[in-house]
Amino acid sequence: MDLNYYVEFARTAERGKFDTIFLADELYVWDRFTSGIEHSSNVRPEPFVLLGAIAAVTRHIGLAATLSTTYNEPYHVARKLATLDHLSNGRAAWNLVTSASDEEARNFGRDRNLDHAIRYERAREFVDVARGLWDSWDDDALLCDKQSGYFADASKLHTLYHQGKHFTVRGPLNIARPPQGYPVLFQAGASPAGRDLAAATADAVFTIAGSLAQAQEFYADVKRRARGYGREPNDVKVLPMLVPVIGVTEQQARDHAEELVALTPQRLALDHLSHYLEIDLSARDLDEPLDFQADVNVTNQSKSIYARLAAIASDRSVTLRDLYRRMFLDRVQIGTPEQLADYMQERFDGEGADGFVVFPAAMPDGLTDFVDLVVPELQKRALFRTEYTTDTLRGHLGLAWPPSSYVKADSARIVSAHPTRGCLM
Amino acid sequence: MDLNYYVEFARTAERGKFDTIFLADELYVWDRFTSGIEHSSNVRPEPFVLLGAIAAVTRHIGLAATLSTTYNEPYHVARKLATLDHLSNGRAAWNLVTSASDEEARNFGRDRNLDHAIRYERAREFVDVARGLWDSWDDDALLCDKQSGYFADASKLHTLYHQGKHFTVRGPLNIARPPQGYPVLFQAGASPAGRDLAAATADAVFTIAGSLAQAQEFYADVKRRARGYGREPNDVKVLPMLVPVIGVTEQQARDHAEELVALTPQRLALDHLSHYLEIDLSARDLDEPLDFQADVNVTNQSKSIYARLAAIASDRSVTLRDLYRRMFLDRVQIGTPEQLADYMQERFDGEGADGFVVFPAAMPDGLTDFVDLVVPELQKRALFRTEYTTDTLRGHLGLAWPPSSYVKADSARIVSAHPTRGCLM
Repeated sequence: MDLNYYVEFARTAERGKFDTIFLADELYVWDRFTSGIEHSSNVRPEPFVLLGAIAAVTRHIGLAATLSTTYNEPYHVARKLATLDHLSNGRAAWNLVTSASDEEARNFGRDRNLDHAIRYERAREFVDVARGLWDSWDDDALLCDKQSGYFADASKLHTLYHQGKHFTVRGPLNIARPPQGYPVLFQAGASPAGRDLAAATADAVFTIAGSLAQAQEFYADVKRRARGYGREPNDVKVLPMLVPVIGVTEQQARDHAEELVALTPQRLALDHLSHYLEIDLSARDLDEPLDFQADVNVTNQSKSIYARLAAIASDRSVTLRDLYRRMFLDRVQIGTPEQLADYMQERFDGEGADGFVVFPAAMPDGLTDFVDLVVPELQKRALFRTEYTTDTLRGHLGLAWPPSSYVKADSARIVSAHPTRGCLM
Repeated sequence: MDLNYYVEFARTAERGKFDTIFLADELYVWDRFTSGIEHSSNVRPEPFVLLGAIAAVTRHIGLAATLSTTYNEPYHVARKLATLDHLSNGRAAWNLVTSASDEEARNFGRDRNLDHAIRYERAREFVDVARGLWDSWDDDALLCDKQSGYFADASKLHTLYHQGKHFTVRGPLNIARPPQGYPVLFQAGASPAGRDLAAATADAVFTIAGSLAQAQEFYADVKRRARGYGREPNDVKVLPMLVPVIGVTEQQARDHAEELVALTPQRLALDHLSHYLEIDLSARDLDEPLDFQADVNVTNQSKSIYARLAAIASDRSVTLRDLYRRMFLDRVQIGTPEQLADYMQERFDGEGADGFVVFPAAMPDGLTDFVDLVVPELQKRALFRTEYTTDTLRGHLGLAWPPSSYVKADSARIVSAHPTRGCLM
């Protein structure tokens, strides 16, 4: 709850020349199991108020957080992101999620979460509405002319009049077009519907690490789907998750990983498995083998995590205790700075990744270690920047600046990157 | 759109030892008239992202902004305010409004705004839900004990299970109880329903200035209504609006006021009147007398502004041009620093005000002048602090810290003011 903690985190990432920080978010307390309350960090700041604070004390780093399209209104979301983009001079991003838990539904007047297909349909319409709202004011609509008393050119204001299946939003949005045109859109869908939504709309897609072959399959598939939507492969960055556990020697790194597993209270491990598998395992013995029948179609939770657990559990000799440990170890990348750089380089070169979402297994040391040990190794190999060369998150990520949908293609060249800056009211 | 502008504003107010800054907000573009687009500052940052940024670069000043209970969900609002309260170490406040414009409805899937009575009913339930959510975690619920792995004491987490007419919210809220217990609640209702809601729930109520007699009537009425809800008169501060126009001499102040009126584009003045009176005046001549039939019951706009205009227009010789000018001059307080201090002192002493919402007629000079000229005069008279003596907005305002509804009265004394500080995750 302490701002200083997050400021330190953001400054460390900025020192490491990261493209962005990213704050995951959920709209509920994971209280399905008592252990979730007792052992999980179940409280977290609302991320956009927090990112506002971080914007004020950082200069280059991107500012991203999760937003649910199922439990938000597009007008609020578009405005919040545009605000962060203005206050940070073009560093805002959102990670679109459709929410996976019934717990979230119950905080917003519903009994159960919406079905998977409906959530993704709603998400796509949500993105359309948000972008439509961001285009409300042309980039040069605000005149702020004290002499004439003209604040804006009324001919450069556009009313959306959106009437869709899920939303009716008149517009216009009451904030100028964001410096980035549209704030950067991240997504993490792994299901076919999720990949499709990302290919159609996202600037970058998060994914679990998996094997090199799996990463390559995902990478190629997302780029192919993007082409199907008339986009260039480079318009959608693929960013696998990387959970580094770093040691000066490989043995030190392995010892550190086992230490982290051992620190998990065992009841919490069991309840985590119950949650993801949607089976009550509380009466089971940790050391008995889990005879697990996987059917990915029955879960309304994250399909990718479910499939991953099912794959591990297909070895029938695995115990519950093993399953949790292997799930943990399976998600982390253990090694020396050189080994981690090797791992990343292999995926860059092999078209398995455009970048990585670095998710330290422990904070804040995991990030500090990565910045101090792995980043220099990547820089030595010319795989990573040594200084920021652009001012916006789109710039850092090598993404094009999107002109407004109201601007004709042949006049797009006259639109500069930050037309609204310097207009002080 | 520039963060520096707002930071400068907040720092000036903090230099002047103000209790709080306050950002008014609306959820639409005032585009009913073209002049509204051309001459009004129709764009504004989402206030809570902005207040997050300001929290990071200020230390004492309160951070308040408007939130509509008609177009928001209590879970989001409670979380956003709790976050700001944590990040600012107890300086967050909200100004509850029920929204007055159909334009806002149309950005959230409705054709028209809800009726006045329903809006206030919903607002009261909204406050109940928000406070219930803020009490989710007892003040000492978070243990953050690294040794044992215990994050929280599960017996100190409370689930709300709210089922009301307007909201169904299970809870708990996924953020610790705010340092202030409940962030400070401002309201501005002037109608009987508005006064009643304020008396029942608000920590402070904004009101228009009016005459001394009107201010005293309002002051006494709000305190009397508060008593009716079992509250102490001092639990609800009454804060009339003060729009100072300051000059070193009285003539200089008067000239400045006329200059400000003259700066209003005439078409904008006319359209403002059309908006508040809900009559299309666009075809009328500015200099013709307005034959105006007031019926405060027919308006769904702000009843207080409507009544005020009706009172001025009851003089049948008034022209539209006069009406706007008199509406402006009627709302401002013109004078030297001594005269403004006299005005404020008279209302302090006469039980017409516990404090003032200072709303400079022009920014940023109006605020700078007030801080440099009027504040020292008030300090000389011992009417205003010379240094901050507390760290929270509740402290500045002399409001008691509210214990959680789950804490029994007899154990309330053991609850300290900032029990969750220092718990660093």
